[in-house]
Amino acid sequence: MAIVLGDNRYGKAENRVVRVDREGDEHRITDLNVSVSLSGDMSDTHLTGANDKVLATDTQKNTVFAFARDGVGEIEDYALRLARHFVTSQESIHGARVRVESYPWQRLTVGGQPAHHSFARSGGGTRTTTVHYDGEQAWVLGGVEDLTVLNTTGSEFWGFPRDGYTTLPETKDRILATAVNASWRFAGDDVDWAGAYDTALASLLDAFGGTHSQSLQQTLYAMGSRVLETVPEIVEVRLSLPNKHHFLTDLSPFGLDNPGAIFHAADRPYGLIEGTVLRDDAPAAGPAWS
Amino acid sequence: MAIVLGDNRYGKAENRVVRVDREGDEHRITDLNVSVSLSGDMSDTHLTGANDKVLATDTQKNTVFAFARDGVGEIEDYALRLARHFVTSQESIHGARVRVESYPWQRLTVGGQPAHHSFARSGGGTRTTTVHYDGEQAWVLGGVEDLTVLNTTGSEFWGFPRDGYTTLPETKDRILATAVNASWRFAGDDVDWAGAYDTALASLLDAFGGTHSQSLQQTLYAMGSRVLETVPEIVEVRLSLPNKHHFLTDLSPFGLDNPGAIFHAADRPYGLIEGTVLRDDAPAAGPAWS
Amino acid sequence: MAIVLGDNRYGKAENRVVRVDREGDEHRITDLNVSVSLSGDMSDTHLTGANDKVLATDTQKNTVFAFARDGVGEIEDYALRLARHFVTSQESIHGARVRVESYPWQRLTVGGQPAHHSFARSGGGTRTTTVHYDGEQAWVLGGVEDLTVLNTTGSEFWGFPRDGYTTLPETKDRILATAVNASWRFAGDDVDWAGAYDTALASLLDAFGGTHSQSLQQTLYAMGSRVLETVPEIVEVRLSLPNKHHFLTDLSPFGLDNPGAIFHAADRPYGLIEGTVLRDDAPAAGPAWS
Amino acid sequence: MAIVLGDNRYGKAENRVVRVDREGDEHRITDLNVSVSLSGDMSDTHLTGANDKVLATDTQKNTVFAFARDGVGEIEDYALRLARHFVTSQESIHGARVRVESYPWQRLTVGGQPAHHSFARSGGGTRTTTVHYDGEQAWVLGGVEDLTVLNTTGSEFWGFPRDGYTTLPETKDRILATAVNASWRFAGDDVDWAGAYDTALASLLDAFGGTHSQSLQQTLYAMGSRVLETVPEIVEVRLSLPNKHHFLTDLSPFGLDNPGAIFHAADRPYGLIEGTVLRDDAPAAGPAWS
Repeated sequence: MAIVLGDNRYGKAENRVVRVDREGDEHRITDLNVSVSLSGDMSDTHLTGANDKVLATDTQKNTVFAFARDGVGEIEDYALRLARHFVTSQESIHGARVRVESYPWQRLTVGGQPAHHSFARSGGGTRTTTVHYDGEQAWVLGGVEDLTVLNTTGSEFWGFPRDGYTTLPETKDRILATAVNASWRFAGDDVDWAGAYDTALASLLDAFGGTHSQSLQQTLYAMGSRVLETVPEIVEVRLSLPNKHHFLTDLSPFGLDNPGAIFHAADRPYGLIEGTVLRDDAPAAGPAWS
Repeated sequence: MAIVLGDNRYGKAENRVVRVDREGDEHRITDLNVSVSLSGDMSDTHLTGANDKVLATDTQKNTVFAFARDGVGEIEDYALRLARHFVTSQESIHGARVRVESYPWQRLTVGGQPAHHSFARSGGGTRTTTVHYDGEQAWVLGGVEDLTVLNTTGSEFWGFPRDGYTTLPETKDRILATAVNASWRFAGDDVDWAGAYDTALASLLDAFGGTHSQSLQQTLYAMGSRVLETVPEIVEVRLSLPNKHHFLTDLSPFGLDNPGAIFHAADRPYGLIEGTVLRDDAPAAGPAWS
Repeated sequence: MAIVLGDNRYGKAENRVVRVDREGDEHRITDLNVSVSLSGDMSDTHLTGANDKVLATDTQKNTVFAFARDGVGEIEDYALRLARHFVTSQESIHGARVRVESYPWQRLTVGGQPAHHSFARSGGGTRTTTVHYDGEQAWVLGGVEDLTVLNTTGSEFWGFPRDGYTTLPETKDRILATAVNASWRFAGDDVDWAGAYDTALASLLDAFGGTHSQSLQQTLYAMGSRVLETVPEIVEVRLSLPNKHHFLTDLSPFGLDNPGAIFHAADRPYGLIEGTVLRDDAPAAGPAWS
Repeated sequence: MAIVLGDNRYGKAENRVVRVDREGDEHRITDLNVSVSLSGDMSDTHLTGANDKVLATDTQKNTVFAFARDGVGEIEDYALRLARHFVTSQESIHGARVRVESYPWQRLTVGGQPAHHSFARSGGGTRTTTVHYDGEQAWVLGGVEDLTVLNTTGSEFWGFPRDGYTTLPETKDRILATAVNASWRFAGDDVDWAGAYDTALASLLDAFGGTHSQSLQQTLYAMGSRVLETVPEIVEVRLSLPNKHHFLTDLSPFGLDNPGAIFHAADRPYGLIEGTVLRDDAPAAGPAWS
């Protein structure tokens, strides 16, 4: 028996890059959280402490900021540029993963007009991308996080098996709430990224709101398949949906009925529904999800 | 020397009440976090363990949910109803503080139409209120939290004293970003609460974006005084504004200039500017801020 | 009616200062979070934008780090040195508040011996201090945070009034758990700070565990008075104790009893018990708690 | 092209189970966070909304609590019992993953004696396990989280390549700090779990403190291989180690040197070093890490 080094990677996580574009009549803002992770021929640094093949994570950070100098553009393109740079910059680096989160801001109204240079953080979800590059091929994921949605009706849950530990009553009407965590895989890297994101996001919301649901699984499938139907470049969608329970409060001890009016929003535990929806002819995912 | 009991209070914190209004053509949602704190003649429970004057915090929780049964209305009114109830419900309770946070949601678009029953959590800040009632008088605070705003220019900081520990260069142009935490005190309790909130919020944003700033203090004063100018029922505004530093990245080692384009958004430490702006004829605050 | 500036202060919050002492046979580590807040004659910066009386928060940060150079010592002394410096460094500064949190670390065992330079973050609470200095007098608070404790028995809650919203059954045996947040006020500033902290902490824990409790209020009073009894320099103790509810799980649907064995630890809502215990001859608190 | 359902699973996450053992002279406490995730023949609920193969996540929660009734024992055994139950309870369930986190508590001293029923949350890391069961075989992971460690010296970083984005100076002495996140895979399921955990934890700490480090990667490998050397039943160790940077503060503007005394503990960005150390004859991991 011998002890050996297995899979490994290293990088700089959560570089908080903010870019201001000052061209034109109005300033624009790009607010990013960028994480880099590199892999390759890293035996020496683990086994002997020789660091001649280690691109310092501080260097990775500098690169992330410098590459934003001439414009970020769409985050998928920015991540592709970075990933390709890292793999080609050092012979010892065989793979790069670049993750970018983009926080949404909206322009303020000042003096009754759209502001020139003033913004507020908005809701509507954080746009994400994760790019893998192995020296030959790039895999691109898009996605959205921190998007909390709720249906006040149109959700049922019944017909489930009852074993000795089942106490949940069946329901024909409940609140359905979740914090959408979605990632989607593109077949290539020549895509209208902004258009694809906007369409995917709108599709997720439209399917969430428009599905009369028998289970959060059914809603998940409707959301994933809707994205596939509306964005041809996307071949696979992965969704992780916490079921944020809203329990009907029992007001009967106080002589009150509660016809679907008052709920307690619980923290823990929560249901967690995870699933993948994909095209049957999707190309192999390779390292896309690793 | 003797040991004595000083100020004390007790309550149930963070009751997560969600109300669905189903009247009319569209559902509406109210999403609250309610905290109650009561004070009064509480010596016995501290000193002897006798609980006959302690309104159980579980009872307080039940009351919070039950009082939402017939509609919440404006959160200031809901807090007033609760605070008055608690003080009158038990002879031993002499004061009640009720704090309500209201999370914003926006209606989704489904099938190209405003959704009937589907919502997404939105940005734009959490509306808050804190009500004190002492059996005779009520004090009402309104406010907003979790409202992150940023100016990409129009902010300077120079002319400050330089002592032996000063290294900060002066600047005529910097990013100014903060997470607004504002509370305002009303002179009475007969107010158009929703209108006051909307006007106060718009005034804060308008003053933040419209002030060419020499310091965050100057911006703070502009924001507070604007609220006083636009909402006559408000007599005092308190603001706590973290200075969320955005540092210009030094790209010169990489042969790049950085003309106000690329910034690092820092986490800690951060500046913290706190101030009060009030009318010179404001009535006494009493326990409003305690 | 005129609009005026009220109370205000400004500073640099959450400076994360780590000091390594390398003297002697073993390294020692001090891990601090330091927040400074200054007040004084600050009208100009708010009203006209002139900053000649504003000690930049960046300068405050530098001072915090520089003052640690020759040793921190006890955090109360370090905060006193900083507070006195700030008030005397600028004529316009009339008051300083310095807050220090000290995170606990314990020495690792390496090769069967106490390590020379290796540590792990430990539990047991974060030691805190808050110092106010107004140019003439200093007020010193000590305290502890993030100290979670639990009694599996020895806690009752019964005899409370029952109104129309009361459903809680009485209990003669429950779990009592809280996260201790305690601050204590010293009468002077010439104290064996480390000894006082150790004694106060031990007293809080001993009183929590040793009190057969009829309510968390009773436990709070026992904890506060015990500190006053054991540390003569302390004249007032303030405690904020969340009641971290542990609900007995109903296992009867599964044919199981539950004799105080299985509990669900709930997140929200939680009880919140706040109280002050003090000596009847305690000197005036002045700005100590502001 | 058709749209199909891919991998999916569902469950109840973060059940907060607390067990009190009252046998013997002293109470003991077990404080767990339990998450269940099931997979199997779930096409119907996704595609048609029929739920007859869905074991309600509420039922899973009930099972988690009920299975603690007669004692939890070692968390690996508890997770194994649960995982086997779920797969055998429903024909449609083909795989179960059970994750358990166990929070550490220590007995208080009360009245100078070890307390009978009083505890404080302690540091030292959260013990974890993740069990997969597929109806035939079980895979067991152990691990530790939330274990923050720091070396004040004995850490170097030099000899790394310098490209056009490299500004980091080489160092022969730095602080090395990380929050250990380790998981290890057992070859079987008949193990002295408590002994294995204690030995693995001690080995991680001993290797962290005892390794003179040229890089965090080298430290990672030393930690992982030490566990393999000391616990024969463990065949693979995965470590994720954030490099929690401590930057030497430049005090020279204030006329002070800084011989490794004063550091700023930064939040973001941070290095992130991830690696696997395993035996070359380790059996296949199957679904253990999924």
